[in-house]
Formats: sequence, C-alpha cells, structure tokens
Amino acid sequence: MRAEIVSVGDELLKGQRVNTNAAFISSALAGIGVPVGRVVACSDLEDEIIAAFAESLERADIVLVTGGLGPTKDDRTKKAVQKLLEKGIELHKDTYQNLVERIKKRGQDMSASLRDQAMVIEGSLVIPNTRGTAAGMIIPCGERFHHHYLVLMPGVPSEMKAMMELTVIPYFAALSTTVIRHTPVKTLGIGESMLAEMIVDIEDRLPEGTTLAYLPHAAGVSLMISTLGCEREAVDRDNRNVVDAIVQRAGKHIYATSEVTLEETVGQMLSARGLTVAVAESCTGGLIASRFTDVPGSSSYFLQGFVVYSNQAKHSALGVPEETIKIFGAVSEEVARAMATGCLEKSGADFAVSTTGIAGPSGGSPEKPVGTLCLAIAKKNSADVLSRRLVMQGDREQNKLRFSEAALRELWQCLRQG
Amino acid sequence: MRAEIVSVGDELLKGQRVNTNAAFISSALAGIGVPVGRVVACSDLEDEIIAAFAESLERADIVLVTGGLGPTKDDRTKKAVQKLLEKGIELHKDTYQNLVERIKKRGQDMSASLRDQAMVIEGSLVIPNTRGTAAGMIIPCGERFHHHYLVLMPGVPSEMKAMMELTVIPYFAALSTTVIRHTPVKTLGIGESMLAEMIVDIEDRLPEGTTLAYLPHAAGVSLMISTLGCEREAVDRDNRNVVDAIVQRAGKHIYATSEVTLEETVGQMLSARGLTVAVAESCTGGLIASRFTDVPGSSSYFLQGFVVYSNQAKHSALGVPEETIKIFGAVSEEVARAMATGCLEKSGADFAVSTTGIAGPSGGSPEKPVGTLCLAIAKKNSADVLSRRLVMQGDREQNKLRFSEAALRELWQCLRQG
Repeated sequence: MRAEIVSVGDELLKGQRVNTNAAFISSALAGIGVPVGRVVACSDLEDEIIAAFAESLERADIVLVTGGLGPTKDDRTKKAVQKLLEKGIELHKDTYQNLVERIKKRGQDMSASLRDQAMVIEGSLVIPNTRGTAAGMIIPCGERFHHHYLVLMPGVPSEMKAMMELTVIPYFAALSTTVIRHTPVKTLGIGESMLAEMIVDIEDRLPEGTTLAYLPHAAGVSLMISTLGCEREAVDRDNRNVVDAIVQRAGKHIYATSEVTLEETVGQMLSARGLTVAVAESCTGGLIASRFTDVPGSSSYFLQGFVVYSNQAKHSALGVPEETIKIFGAVSEEVARAMATGCLEKSGADFAVSTTGIAGPSGGSPEKPVGTLCLAIAKKNSADVLSRRLVMQGDREQNKLRFSEAALRELWQCLRQG
Repeated sequence: MRAEIVSVGDELLKGQRVNTNAAFISSALAGIGVPVGRVVACSDLEDEIIAAFAESLERADIVLVTGGLGPTKDDRTKKAVQKLLEKGIELHKDTYQNLVERIKKRGQDMSASLRDQAMVIEGSLVIPNTRGTAAGMIIPCGERFHHHYLVLMPGVPSEMKAMMELTVIPYFAALSTTVIRHTPVKTLGIGESMLAEMIVDIEDRLPEGTTLAYLPHAAGVSLMISTLGCEREAVDRDNRNVVDAIVQRAGKHIYATSEVTLEETVGQMLSARGLTVAVAESCTGGLIASRFTDVPGSSSYFLQGFVVYSNQAKHSALGVPEETIKIFGAVSEEVARAMATGCLEKSGADFAVSTTGIAGPSGGSPEKPVGTLCLAIAKKNSADVLSRRLVMQGDREQNKLRFSEAALRELWQCLRQG
C-alpha cells in the first residue's frame, strides 16, 4: 500500500506557508508501514485540484489531502472532489449538531458558512473534527480509480493531527501489510562528508530493503536508517544491525538513536542524576532557556535563566565586574566565565551555562567577527570553569540556533564525561 | 512564465524534514512576477526523479530543483538529469579550484567524492556556491522540453538561498514579463470565520487578477492580497485599493500590512519612542526574550529577561513575595503582577511584561487547566499594572507560542493606546 499527499492552498505556492502538515502525515504513515511516494502542493483553483487528485489517485492507494475545507471562498476541495468522482453532497447531522452546540457555547450567532462545513461527500466515512469545525472524510473512489482512497482533512495543523491520530491511522493500519522501521542516528560536531567517509563500508553493504539518508540541519547532520519488508522480526533485526555498526564506528559523535532532541537528551541526563541547570544568555537571547523549557517536565531540572542583553544587566543580574567587561569586552571568554559563575551563585544550580557573542548582522569587528561565540560552563563545588571561543557562519537566526546548539553540546559533553 | 518546484529527498517523504526550501523559492519567485504552479517532493530514486522532472517540464517554463547534489550515495539528481536530457557531464574548473582551496585552508585531505561535486551537466550555466561545495546549474532543456529550464540547487537551505539571491533571481527576472504584488495583512485576536464575515463584500468584488487568501497560524489568522497583471502601476493600484478597504474595515485587529513579525512591530514602536522593555517569564520559558532578540538591533530597546521557572527563582530574582505565591498560587494574576513590578524595578526598563501559566501536558487542575496563562504589564512611573487571565487550547509547544503571542499582543495594545 502506497500513499501520496496533496496539500491544497495558494499560500504554499507563494511561500507564505511552510508545508509542515506533509511532514507530519508522512511520519505518521511511516509508523504503520505505508510509504509516501510523493508530496504535491497545488493551488486553490478547482481545475488544478482536480488534476492533482486524479494524477495521485492513479499512482497511490491512498491520497491524503489537506486544506480547502474551510468556510471561506478560497476553499474549493469538496467541489473538486464532487466533480472528479461525480458524487453528490449531503448534510452530516452529527457534525452539524456539534457545530451548533459549539457556537452556542461561545455565545456567537450561527453564520451561514458554518452549515457548509457540515456538508460531506456522499458515501464517505466522516472523520470527526475534535479541534475545529470542518468535517474530514475518507472516500472510497470506486472502480474508475482502482478502488483507491481519498482522505480529506483541514489544513489547520492541530485539526489535521487529531484526525490522523484518532481516525485515519487506525483505519489504514488495519489494511496495511508492509512493515517499516526507521531509526534516526543523531550526531553532533561532525559534517556530512566526514561522516560519510567514516561509514562508507557500512553504507556499501546495507542489507536489501535498508536505506541510509543524510539529514543535514542548521547545526550538523543526522542519519536515518530505514528498513522496509514483510516480516516484523527480520525488518527490526536488519535495521538494528546497521544502527549498531554505525554507533560502534562513530559513537563519540552520536547523542541518540531515537527521535529526541539535544535538549531532551541533556534534560534526561540531568534528571537521571538529580542535577539542575541554569543559564545566562546574552547573544542567544533566551533561546537556550526556551529550548530547555520546550521539554515537558523540565521544571524538575531547569531552575532559572538570565537574559542579560545589556552590559548593565550583566553586571546587575549576575555580578559580572564592570572592569572585566571594560578590559576584555562583552564578547570574551572572561565575561562568559564571569556570567557562568554569577549564574551558578544566583541560581544555586549544579551547572550554569553562559553565552556571549555576536549574532549579527551588525556588531562585528575584524578581531570579533559576526558569528563569534564565547561560552562557559561552571559547575557547583568546582573551581574549574570551562570556556570556549568559536566562530560560526550564518545569518542572525542561524547563529542564534548554532550558538544555542554549541552550548547544549558542551553541557552534553560535560555530563557524558562526568 | 510559470515555475514548478521539485524537492528531491526521501527525508521529505518520511516526514523527517519539513520542506522550507520550497517556501523560500516560491516567495523569491513571486517577487519577480513568476508564479509557482506546483510543488512536488519526490524520493531519491533515479526513476522517480526522472518522472517528476519530465512531468514538471511539460507544465512549467522553469523547474527549480533542490537536493540530491551532495557527495553521498543517496544524491542522484545529476544522474537523473543526464538520463532525461541525454547529456554528458564535465568538470567545471572554477568550482573544482574553489573546492581544492577550501579544503586546503581547512587543512583537510582531498576526498575523492569532492571531485564529483565539481562535475556539471554539459551546456549548463554554473551557479557558484558561495556557502558550500556542490555547484548549482541552470540548464536549458532544448526543443524536446519546449525550451524550458531546469535549475539545480543543493538542499542545504543556506546554500540554496545564496544561489537564488545571487544568480537565479537576477537571471529569470530579466526574462519575466508578468508583474505581481503580494501584500500581507497581519491580524491579531480575531478568528478566520469572523474576519471572513467582516470583509465578505470586499471579497465579493475583488478586481480581476486579485485574490485573497486566509493564512491561519498558531496564534490567529493573516490575509494575503495578491494581484497579477501586465502593468506595474495598475497592479499596484488594484492591490492597494483592496488592502486599504480591509484596513478601514478591520483596522483595530491589524498590526501590519507588510512582512513583519509582531515582535518587529512592537520593537519598532518601542524604538521610535525611545522606550525600553524587560521580560519576566515562567511558562514561556525564555521564548518572549528569544522572539524579541530575533530582531536585529533589538539591543537598543530590549534590556533584560528573567526566566523564573521555580518559585524560588521568582522570589530571589524578582522579589515576588513568598506569601503571594502561597496564597494565590504561582499561576495567578497576583503573581504575574508581582513579577512584572519586580522586573520593572530590577531592569530599570520602561515596560515589563510577565507570564506565568501552565503549558502542559501535566500540571493542570479543574480551576487552572492546562493552557491557563496569567500575564501582566507594568509601566514605569505608573501605579497601574495591567493583568489578564486567558485559557488556550493546544499542546505544550503551541501553548508556549500562543502565550508569548498574547503577551506581545497586550504590549502592542498598550503602546498603541499610549
């Protein structure tokens, strides 16, 4: 069983919206062994929608559609399906009832457009919308389209996600016969070419059905080992053997072989040892704190953050001596160290991580170009403060991300050694 | 002249990578009046790449490709193009020379795979890669493909972006005859249905060539007004008339009619009046500070942030009375107010914004469910502290984002009134 995704919406073609829905749907389908062959984004025009649906239905058993179910004039997905499949439309009573109650609860008036959202293609299985108003549909497309399925969902990510999890995945899991296993190998501090050379022989003799992909990202590269087959046990074994071989070869660059972020990994290490952390950020401007606190349960190890953008704040909040800033400059290992020790003291945490640098686009100099980062890590009951100076290349947003990644990486290394 | 985008890479079909490249390319092409008709993501397999290229070259004058130019085994774009167009491959000397120097500078050995990256399709215009190693190409596809163009670029966003800006856009701008104007209308605190009803008559009589799209996002909805035509003046006038009509109708919900973020807008308002801001964050965990500091030049108005996750930190860093936390709970308007006034005092800023709430997934109660946010804004030389309690629905990440949006929105309203 193979799938394709069609994302409907002019906003995807004008670059006003990034297609995160397709990634979510692909990932969810992978979990039940349904590979995605293609992702297509097409415009809101009825003819374009019809053409895209017809082409995908030729190639794929399941065509999952997002977008164009809303209440506004640029929502034309249902009309396109009616024309393509030559089917009528009918009011779905449960959906309508839910809508009416929802609106009453909010004390709003019932608008005419809301009734449209409860209209569904005849003969479809209705997917309840637990997060919004428009109903979703699983539509068997009949003989003309090889008995393939069309699945319609809203473009709003939270509504689509709930529909996938509650209805679409369970429905198609029951019909799927292939088995798939993906294992990510998350690395740190190594580039794509270097990593490729390190594991070239492993890649040369991958078992049949197993592929290896490189996923470069803003702060490094990750690998994805995927195995497709018919038997759960053989698929899992082949996949695990490849992952084990890579870990054995490149282990010191690998922080995880599962879908966890670096901040989750560091959080788990802190949590497992009952340790706490605090951060003092200048150039990362709160991003490290925000990444730590993206993780549920982080309140058990993340105590506090200081975003000290001005020199005045570095002094008043963390006690960085004005003298140190004057002599070495705000972007210096000396100031980073003073920030870390100040943060350790003020917060009472076991570890304090600090950053000071130049994210750009302005503020650089020949000695301290844009992209310069000074970071430090101080540890409770230890006079040793680790500090580093690094230079990265990127725009402001990339630099902030890479700076935060470098700080988390240093802390990860400290925790691994300690 | 119309374009299509083909993004090559299994990672896009497995949901391991979100296709941000397509959004960037679409947006850049829109700026020179080249609409994108379709975006296709296909796998790394040579046959699939060939099929996708052939289909898009039938429909579009320019087919822009990202991915599959790298040094690893899953990079098969150039091979697919060779087969499809029946063309040879040749070493591009300048690219090779640059590569050799780059490697020498880093003190690395020359790996065999690097030479491959300097090989280009014969008869192509080479796009220099200022950010990485693989060369890009603009390839005229000859009579068989209606003299359409294939543009090959790497999948690494920073490399692709530099190629688009320095070479691809200038090249095709010279060939384009249509004119396009997009104007975003950025709104706050209003839903899609409500906004649609408010402007229904404007939408009903849009001038020919003008379209209106709704872009719902995690914290609200924005509009995009797009006008396509042959004459710059007429296109600009039609577009502006529609935007003006919407602003007149829904002005109080609109914070911008250009591509700026809420944090930029608030930053500009602060900056224009010489005012400064500091933040005290519990549930948003540094995200508001990070959003403020995403804006270049924010150091002139953003002074300081306090991420006070623990009660202890709220007390020690901001002087929130332990008594207040005990009586009202950490998530309360009273604590938010104490955080804001403490932050105002410690930072010396003109405005202090605070948040305390429950991002989830755990920590909720019947009185204070997950999604509860208490926020406050304190103002220098004013005894009035504004505070609000809101409840949102979402997962942890969405809640953090919506909480931060709500805080910025309140500050925006303060600044607009003041």
